[in-house]
Amino acid sequence: MEKGQLLYEGKAKRLYATDKPEILWVEYKDSATAFNGEKKAEIAGKGLLNNKITSLLFEKLQKAGIASHFVQQLSDREQLVQQVSIIPIEVVVRNIVAGSMAKRLGIAEGTVLARPIVEFYLKNDELGDPIITEDHIELLELATSAEVEQLREKAVAINQVLIGFFHEIGVDLIDFKIEFGRDSNGAILLADEISPDTCRLWDAKTKQKLDKDVFRRDLGNLTDAYELILTRLGGQHS
Amino acid sequence: MEKGQLLYEGKAKRLYATDKPEILWVEYKDSATAFNGEKKAEIAGKGLLNNKITSLLFEKLQKAGIASHFVQQLSDREQLVQQVSIIPIEVVVRNIVAGSMAKRLGIAEGTVLARPIVEFYLKNDELGDPIITEDHIELLELATSAEVEQLREKAVAINQVLIGFFHEIGVDLIDFKIEFGRDSNGAILLADEISPDTCRLWDAKTKQKLDKDVFRRDLGNLTDAYELILTRLGGQHS
Repeated sequence: MEKGQLLYEGKAKRLYATDKPEILWVEYKDSATAFNGEKKAEIAGKGLLNNKITSLLFEKLQKAGIASHFVQQLSDREQLVQQVSIIPIEVVVRNIVAGSMAKRLGIAEGTVLARPIVEFYLKNDELGDPIITEDHIELLELATSAEVEQLREKAVAINQVLIGFFHEIGVDLIDFKIEFGRDSNGAILLADEISPDTCRLWDAKTKQKLDKDVFRRDLGNLTDAYELILTRLGGQHS
Repeated sequence: MEKGQLLYEGKAKRLYATDKPEILWVEYKDSATAFNGEKKAEIAGKGLLNNKITSLLFEKLQKAGIASHFVQQLSDREQLVQQVSIIPIEVVVRNIVAGSMAKRLGIAEGTVLARPIVEFYLKNDELGDPIITEDHIELLELATSAEVEQLREKAVAINQVLIGFFHEIGVDLIDFKIEFGRDSNGAILLADEISPDTCRLWDAKTKQKLDKDVFRRDLGNLTDAYELILTRLGGQHS
């Protein structure tokens, strides 16, 4: 497999073509951003950690029957993924109230939800990723209502599996953001990444934050927290 | 009927008790507020116009089979209403994109929606009335899911009737906000007001704004616009 031209550079990753049109080459960057890009930093090692954690989690999810765009990890910072057309909806699943939900609705952070809540946000940095309803998704023609139903069902299933993985390593899965894409047949696949950048992860005993809130809220060393997640998941930090 | 003690003072109205526990006395104020109270003014005559327009519309709605808390107009600024327990959800119905929806989703103001869209907002000034989903309504225990279904159905029915009223007088109903309350039997009744403070109304021919956007956006004389709505609806401006 050969690395081709740069196709897209996002806040956390670069996407390259390969010699196979259906396969992309992903490179994880060390950039950290928060509050819609208002807070920025370069954190050495973050890209490596997120690449390894995402690879591990996508592999574990595939074994649990959750298909994704993930093909294989290539190196510390690189992985191959299947090309999909990303649906511009950020799907958020919440088990415990935190972050924007606590702020928006005036509910104490840490409040346990009776059942997981799925929220949809428009993936649009200029608009600040606003929360949207299924009517807005239809209006903006982001997905059909049958697809929205699939997104919701897949998100709930992924949540159940991830809760189990994290429970085994003494971590509570508070909430997470995932993205989906359509493959060449129109089938919906889990895509993007699943890492401490996109999940809220609290140590089950100490409630210590082991995710991007460490950066957002200046709570200490980010890579220490991410390394802890990687090693507890059984990954090796080279 | 006697006017009793002041029970509540809101941004636009004062509510008083009467000698009948199930009836409240409403007094419309001249205060205008926008942007969650950031912009304020006293506009002589606004209270009178909104009281008369709301009374007219609630009467017309009742004749069209839409029950509400409205009992009768008492004077220029006063009306009697049935006491209800207000459900703290602002129900917004949109026929044409404008205002916050245009801004939040980056859609041009004036875009005609293929079908009306119903949105729910948490009625909470401190939180800036955030948009909420049915899951948030359940979580915050604002209403049961059967009640939410009723709110949605009633909102759509009210929209259909109001579109007709305004069409007859050469006005397009762009969007509006309504509130509902539960009566002593738990039945859900349309409540609060329906006026140019709570609707976006554009002249069907000239597209001139005849609603609170005149105040929000400094587009001219607010009472001229509201008077035009009142007189076109057949009301008299004393």
